Amino acid sequence: MRHFLTLNDFTKDEILEILDLAKSIKAETKSKNFTKYLQNQTLAMIFEKSSTRTRVSFEVGMYQLGGHALFLSKNDIQIGRGEPIRDTARVISRMCDMAMLRVDKHETLEEFAKYSSVPVINGLSDLYHPVQLMADYLTMIEHNAGDVVAYVGDGNNMTGSWLMLASKLGLDLRIATPKGYEPEETIVKQAYENAKVSGAKILITNDIKQAVKDASVVTTDTWVSMGQEREKEQRISYFDGFMVNDSVMQLAKEGAMFLHCLPAYRGYEVSESVFEAHANEIFDEAENRLHAQKAIMVWLDRHRNS
Amino acid sequence: MRHFLTLNDFTKDEILEILDLAKSIKAETKSKNFTKYLQNQTLAMIFEKSSTRTRVSFEVGMYQLGGHALFLSKNDIQIGRGEPIRDTARVISRMCDMAMLRVDKHETLEEFAKYSSVPVINGLSDLYHPVQLMADYLTMIEHNAGDVVAYVGDGNNMTGSWLMLASKLGLDLRIATPKGYEPEETIVKQAYENAKVSGAKILITNDIKQAVKDASVVTTDTWVSMGQEREKEQRISYFDGFMVNDSVMQLAKEGAMFLHCLPAYRGYEVSESVFEAHANEIFDEAENRLHAQKAIMVWLDRHRNS
Amino acid sequence: MRHFLTLNDFTKDEILEILDLAKSIKAETKSKNFTKYLQNQTLAMIFEKSSTRTRVSFEVGMYQLGGHALFLSKNDIQIGRGEPIRDTARVISRMCDMAMLRVDKHETLEEFAKYSSVPVINGLSDLYHPVQLMADYLTMIEHNAGDVVAYVGDGNNMTGSWLMLASKLGLDLRIATPKGYEPEETIVKQAYENAKVSGAKILITNDIKQAVKDASVVTTDTWVSMGQEREKEQRISYFDGFMVNDSVMQLAKEGAMFLHCLPAYRGYEVSESVFEAHANEIFDEAENRLHAQKAIMVWLDRHRNS
Repeated sequence: MRHFLTLNDFTKDEILEILDLAKSIKAETKSKNFTKYLQNQTLAMIFEKSSTRTRVSFEVGMYQLGGHALFLSKNDIQIGRGEPIRDTARVISRMCDMAMLRVDKHETLEEFAKYSSVPVINGLSDLYHPVQLMADYLTMIEHNAGDVVAYVGDGNNMTGSWLMLASKLGLDLRIATPKGYEPEETIVKQAYENAKVSGAKILITNDIKQAVKDASVVTTDTWVSMGQEREKEQRISYFDGFMVNDSVMQLAKEGAMFLHCLPAYRGYEVSESVFEAHANEIFDEAENRLHAQKAIMVWLDRHRNS
Repeated sequence: MRHFLTLNDFTKDEILEILDLAKSIKAETKSKNFTKYLQNQTLAMIFEKSSTRTRVSFEVGMYQLGGHALFLSKNDIQIGRGEPIRDTARVISRMCDMAMLRVDKHETLEEFAKYSSVPVINGLSDLYHPVQLMADYLTMIEHNAGDVVAYVGDGNNMTGSWLMLASKLGLDLRIATPKGYEPEETIVKQAYENAKVSGAKILITNDIKQAVKDASVVTTDTWVSMGQEREKEQRISYFDGFMVNDSVMQLAKEGAMFLHCLPAYRGYEVSESVFEAHANEIFDEAENRLHAQKAIMVWLDRHRNS
Repeated sequence: MRHFLTLNDFTKDEILEILDLAKSIKAETKSKNFTKYLQNQTLAMIFEKSSTRTRVSFEVGMYQLGGHALFLSKNDIQIGRGEPIRDTARVISRMCDMAMLRVDKHETLEEFAKYSSVPVINGLSDLYHPVQLMADYLTMIEHNAGDVVAYVGDGNNMTGSWLMLASKLGLDLRIATPKGYEPEETIVKQAYENAKVSGAKILITNDIKQAVKDASVVTTDTWVSMGQEREKEQRISYFDGFMVNDSVMQLAKEGAMFLHCLPAYRGYEVSESVFEAHANEIFDEAENRLHAQKAIMVWLDRHRNS
């Protein structure tokens, strides 16, 4: 049985296999062919933080696959009230066929997966956001976007997952953050390790121009993630100069793609004009959460006994 | 593509067509024939305010039609936390086939609909409650209640929708409110405009007797809607004399119907004895939310490409 | 039409009939045969208190039976905001085919059932937890656990339901609580009444050794139920000596079963070592919530017209 906690647990071939499955399931869906790959199956969705996209994409995806997703928020279940995670994991995996968790701490996911008898999916942790990356790369493939990616902004869980995806698939990834907001050191180290095998190029810099120059894809994320609201003022001043605006996009390759995992804060990490000029790509990316996650769930179901 | 934001956007024929559809879908349901008109489709239900009837009727309705409804409360999604409505609308309409919103301000609905690529339904706004009116009129038809309607009480969103329904269908509508609680002027103006075409009679008065005299249907609504709890004491004193009690009902036509969209506060807008004497009509009306809304959804689905 | 509010409303034969149905539905489920016994039906789940197991087991159960369950928390509906229960019951039973309530006060359930035109299930009240008991006894049957049951700890709703189950089925039930925490007197009286018919043996004591000696099943429950958090310190001191630990288990019959309805607080009502040694039984018990409740719903559906 396999879990989907970080892309680091997957080979390049496995990642590409899931993406191929996503493309074919998306094509089926677009032609109104809803194959019930997960008929009679249930997905427990556990949210320590709230979310629009994660919630809607998993719930719709599960329904379209013939299954049913349960929305369990922190307020609705007892996970936050003294019940050990290992008990919740054992109960949930007795009743449901799969679990997706959006957690404050990645260890919660690992503990849950350790005690779960069903596949577990990372719906966002402090370290990684792998389902988002699958949607992002699917969007890049569909738009023939090329493989030179500039990530600009906060060295957070999106950065962690870009490092894993790029280092597994052999992309050219440049990450530009302000000083002090670089990505997690152990994840960077792992990425360099993976790059030896895949031939990926990884650059970590504080120079936004160096990162964006000739990139075929530019991407960013909010500077103030949920739970960081108290640091908001300080963060905004530190991130001065890291907004992706028209002049930043002009450094990139002509016709470069811009991705954003949303929610987007105009005037902070991205300018209104860059956002709206790339709205079609961005909402393709959002929609691809649905298709990519359906593929992940079907793939995990097929590997239950392996 | 059509939205269902206000009855003012619909012709008399369209309203009657939807009501006919409601009658036939209700008959099917009663004979345990659940035609899956919306198989594989999903409805996003977004609630800025909570609700029993709206929530249950849309969720059950969508299920009985073969689809799936997602319950998204203000706490569960990021709509209230700085994400512009136009982004939420674009994401939701990439993933779901229809959206229903219960909003504080009608403009939220209009903004959402502007950016949505799927039909949008008004599940209650500060100006209108059109799905409730479809249920109310369906109940009137079923009970052969006649077309002389007295609305007694607060000039709120229910009043706004009664004005639209009556002025479109050509009813005789009398609205009695205390001074200062008359319905929205622009809506009244629009109703008079519509009445020129339909032949509707519209009376706005502060005299409850004038309104109720010989009415075939009497209806009211809570004096203190959600969000107005602070004005409660003041409102109750202003509304003195506007309770629908037995002596008010005696002014109406013999055997007149009494409707209430619920929740009902006995001893305020309606007396216990009037409520319980008309409980069968009132709970028929509540049940008709289910049937009317199923028809609205099926109708909108059929007009996707028109 | 029948409700499922307390086991006292059921005969021994009826309880055994539901358990037989649970066994056969469980066997079907295990062989991936999901008979759609409740196709097109909806269950309203109303929670005055939150819950993991009750929520997940009813929602998954309803889905596996071909139906749909609606999760209605206190925040999502107007039951807590001045709407009388009898109105909510009449609305819900016009739109849904069954209702399950988790309530603070048992009277709420009785009032709801009185006005409901569809079957009502007790998902936990201050007096009883009958769905849990059906799962517990199903687990005992599956493990050939024998019929001598020692309940140790707080004389709460679990105790109330053990008294009903044991007195109906003719078990040998011993209840050991600290002084002042004995089970509800009227329930004990009813149990003695029932025991005259069934031949059950009922012992209420403050002596844990007397209760556990040679028992084939030992069970307990949290000392601090939801809503009792303020009394926590006092309760813990009063319950000193009532922890089910290895030395308590040694008093029981060799190979005795240990059950816990969860959530479990190690170091309070149960020791870590007893809990983990019996984890397989405990999580079988949790899983059996799903199977037992499916049987209860199917049984109630079959008795709609009786």
